[in-house]
Amino acid sequence: MKIALAQQNYHIGNFQSNKTKIIAAIERAKSENVDLIVFPELAVCGYPPLDFLEIHDFVEKCESSIIEIAQVCKGIAAVLGAPRVNPEVEGKYLYNSAYLLFDGDIQGISDKTLLPNYDVFDEYRYFEPNRRFEVLQYKGKKIALTICEDLWDVEDDLMYVRWPMDELIKQNPDLIINIAASPFSENHALKRKKVLQHNALKYDLPIIYVNHIGAQTELVFDGGSMVMNRQGKLLCELNYFEEDFRIVEFDWINTAKSIPIEADEKMFVENGIERIHKALILGIRDYFSKQGFSKAILGLSGGVDSALVYTLAAEALGPKNVLGVLMPSPYSSEHSITDSLKLAENIQAQTLKLPIDENFFSVKNTLAESFQGLKEDVTEENIQSRLRGLLLMALSNKFGYILLNTSNKSELAVGYGTLYGDMCGGLSVIGDLYKTRVYELCNYINRYRELIPEHILTKAPSAELRPDQKDSDSLPDYDLLDKLLYAYIEQQKGPESLMNMGFDEILVHRVLRMVNSNEYKRFQTAPILRISTKAFGMGRRMPIVGKYF
Amino acid sequence: MKIALAQQNYHIGNFQSNKTKIIAAIERAKSENVDLIVFPELAVCGYPPLDFLEIHDFVEKCESSIIEIAQVCKGIAAVLGAPRVNPEVEGKYLYNSAYLLFDGDIQGISDKTLLPNYDVFDEYRYFEPNRRFEVLQYKGKKIALTICEDLWDVEDDLMYVRWPMDELIKQNPDLIINIAASPFSENHALKRKKVLQHNALKYDLPIIYVNHIGAQTELVFDGGSMVMNRQGKLLCELNYFEEDFRIVEFDWINTAKSIPIEADEKMFVENGIERIHKALILGIRDYFSKQGFSKAILGLSGGVDSALVYTLAAEALGPKNVLGVLMPSPYSSEHSITDSLKLAENIQAQTLKLPIDENFFSVKNTLAESFQGLKEDVTEENIQSRLRGLLLMALSNKFGYILLNTSNKSELAVGYGTLYGDMCGGLSVIGDLYKTRVYELCNYINRYRELIPEHILTKAPSAELRPDQKDSDSLPDYDLLDKLLYAYIEQQKGPESLMNMGFDEILVHRVLRMVNSNEYKRFQTAPILRISTKAFGMGRRMPIVGKYF
Repeated sequence: MKIALAQQNYHIGNFQSNKTKIIAAIERAKSENVDLIVFPELAVCGYPPLDFLEIHDFVEKCESSIIEIAQVCKGIAAVLGAPRVNPEVEGKYLYNSAYLLFDGDIQGISDKTLLPNYDVFDEYRYFEPNRRFEVLQYKGKKIALTICEDLWDVEDDLMYVRWPMDELIKQNPDLIINIAASPFSENHALKRKKVLQHNALKYDLPIIYVNHIGAQTELVFDGGSMVMNRQGKLLCELNYFEEDFRIVEFDWINTAKSIPIEADEKMFVENGIERIHKALILGIRDYFSKQGFSKAILGLSGGVDSALVYTLAAEALGPKNVLGVLMPSPYSSEHSITDSLKLAENIQAQTLKLPIDENFFSVKNTLAESFQGLKEDVTEENIQSRLRGLLLMALSNKFGYILLNTSNKSELAVGYGTLYGDMCGGLSVIGDLYKTRVYELCNYINRYRELIPEHILTKAPSAELRPDQKDSDSLPDYDLLDKLLYAYIEQQKGPESLMNMGFDEILVHRVLRMVNSNEYKRFQTAPILRISTKAFGMGRRMPIVGKYF
Repeated sequence: MKIALAQQNYHIGNFQSNKTKIIAAIERAKSENVDLIVFPELAVCGYPPLDFLEIHDFVEKCESSIIEIAQVCKGIAAVLGAPRVNPEVEGKYLYNSAYLLFDGDIQGISDKTLLPNYDVFDEYRYFEPNRRFEVLQYKGKKIALTICEDLWDVEDDLMYVRWPMDELIKQNPDLIINIAASPFSENHALKRKKVLQHNALKYDLPIIYVNHIGAQTELVFDGGSMVMNRQGKLLCELNYFEEDFRIVEFDWINTAKSIPIEADEKMFVENGIERIHKALILGIRDYFSKQGFSKAILGLSGGVDSALVYTLAAEALGPKNVLGVLMPSPYSSEHSITDSLKLAENIQAQTLKLPIDENFFSVKNTLAESFQGLKEDVTEENIQSRLRGLLLMALSNKFGYILLNTSNKSELAVGYGTLYGDMCGGLSVIGDLYKTRVYELCNYINRYRELIPEHILTKAPSAELRPDQKDSDSLPDYDLLDKLLYAYIEQQKGPESLMNMGFDEILVHRVLRMVNSNEYKRFQTAPILRISTKAFGMGRRMPIVGKYF
């Protein structure tokens, strides 16, 4: 039996485009005498469809897509994901289902049992968990057809109380097929392989695994679909960060030579920055292309954050499509201009210079009477930042650019940014990268030759919103800050645990208070490309009005 | 047996304050010889605690609060809600629990079975559903102790497959206690009574129901705790929109004279605007007080939206604490000033006038070279709006105001607003009110005397961002638009259903496309006080990058 793995990039709600792509893969598979082609979870509508699932018309369009695709499945079978209306009165309206299509019709259905409802996942919002376990048969093979999370409850800390494979194994399946929508985070690809390996060994079955690729707003799906034998050895791995199509022979699975899962885990971890780079490029590219935009604008401060976003955008969209705007104020350094111009030259992207001095004086003049007798403070700093946001948005409106936000995760965490100022933007490109990792990624980008000028990477970080300002005036050293933030945000350590880890008590309380009290700013931030296991945004939901610290 | 209902306003994560409040009520109840006092769901930490529940320290503080409160429960019993660590390895980390405390210790626990995970609710994100059913005993009474949603699966369209009362009833309880965190929406109080009535009749049991009051960012809890007899008759109802405390005798429940649930449902529905008014006042007040702020600022355009928010803020915070800023541009009408000043005089609130002409010219001058040869368009409109946002934020930063957003739901729906301009603000006060309801609420506020000047209510709505602009130039009539938006947003009708309802096909497609394509703007909007069954924000989660229309 020849099995094809179709790893595709879908557009949420764009049924025509998704269907065309799926049918094209089926036709290709037919022409190569494939018996069974496997597509990812919720392929017909894209993942995550979120509350579109609550609109009946949307679900009907999913159903009619399945019917149309089934009609093409003659001489071939297809497995693919779609929502399915729960026929019972009791329970949620939908199942998250895997369809088996052949002979022009729906021949079998498996529903998802384990519904992820943590971090960025909200599946129990829409779907009823499956309680009916049956292997599906095709060409003499018994298939344990599972969906993503169904294989994932394998850690010490078990999140569910029932396991679909424990039921399906009783029916002696010949293989596991798992269709998935498993988003990227830095080390997730390795975890994914280990989870599948655990299942292959536990149930003594080979696994065909097909994942999405492509970015859907903040989530980046990295692909990496694979075939694993019953010994948990990896036999074939599809490309990461791009569409791919691969055909394997079922019999070959028992004889094929395996490839190492990760020869050196340490090396895998060390290469994280390379994967993050690819994820951000795909994230930018899909955010623009799926919305029908091609051009990006951003402010160039001369600092490392905007330099990085500028460079990434130029790579993702082409340098001719990226405009960096220099907006010096009275407090801007000379090097903020020269460094940015050098960078633009290196990457061959566009620049524009719009000094904000006059606008700044004009606004201060308007407020002069109201502010009479008061000292300058953060207000005047924010005015500069907001004037820059205003000019960038004006250019964006006039010429059809999307404004890229350049805030990093450390800043977002502690609220070191101006709402409606430097926090403007349609997409936050590096909002899930701590400052120390921003430098790491810049160095990675400079690995062959200096694209980002050395001086940008060596000068002390500064917002340049008052004379001689430095980040270190108001923030702890980033090396220390980032470690503490990681422990609080990614690892959810409370104050006691943090102090036990060796962090200073005053620092812990100060930083946790900053993080919590700036929730209102993050609430209004652009969507952030997610590259960690805990990004700000849909995956981290905090009360704004609270008083925990 | 004397039972007290303690309807209180908690502050999320403020354990000291919540504990003090709970203990004070217990002491009061003791002094009145109460046997059992009942507090709401998750009382110790406030509702919804969201991802604070993922921090172990936060959960430990809940546990230690329970221990401290238990120590006060001598000669009295208390029922109250708190999260509880799941002792099993399998399943989620926590239960959403109701504790029965007496003799200085925890004497019984019931865990929540039905976990709401729709609209604004995310309970399955944190909690394992209960599967263990046992009535609790106290002073010879058997109590079926349930938590909010546990009684709520009573519609035709059942969302769950198991019902805790169907299990508990087998143990012959004497009464149902339900501790709740049931947020306000316009007609929710009536629905709540009907749901409880359904349970009282079905299980032939009296019900003690205790709800939260107080606003938690976007959610307003309206109280309305109550006692119902086994015939489903309402015996006692606590106040709405304020803390309350009531004592009832258990024996009295069987003999007391009932009060009508709602004498006239039609009148209840007609009085919706009165409840909305109270909800918004409480929403503003708690947003400020729980964050330690007292003063609000907003832009006064001369239009109905800002007039309404100004009036509501003055009522909620006191007129001396509310500053309305008039920021005329070259396109502002004379009446935009005179109407606003009249309003300020009527409500005795503060005003400030800051014309933006010079700033507008200054910004246009900065952009002159870039925009050379191009016609003025929405860009220049947005510049005016953003300059106003910038000035308001400068005043907010300098003097410690919270900026109130004045967008209404119709505008937010179709994207008729400027991101970082009139969409600025820490709290959206009327973002869940369609434009037609904005007028309705203004008329309600004017019911005794004209606070909001008549001319504001009669003139044609206009953004006044270009000469002679009217909302009706680019939007359908609000009467029609609001009906269509309600059907799409609140009722989740798809295009076919909308056309079947009589809406024009071209209009349907145009409006649905506007709603969907402006998701990116709403993503960056301030939290919106929720007064409907489907508000923008945490209760409506839509993909930004999608193509459904």
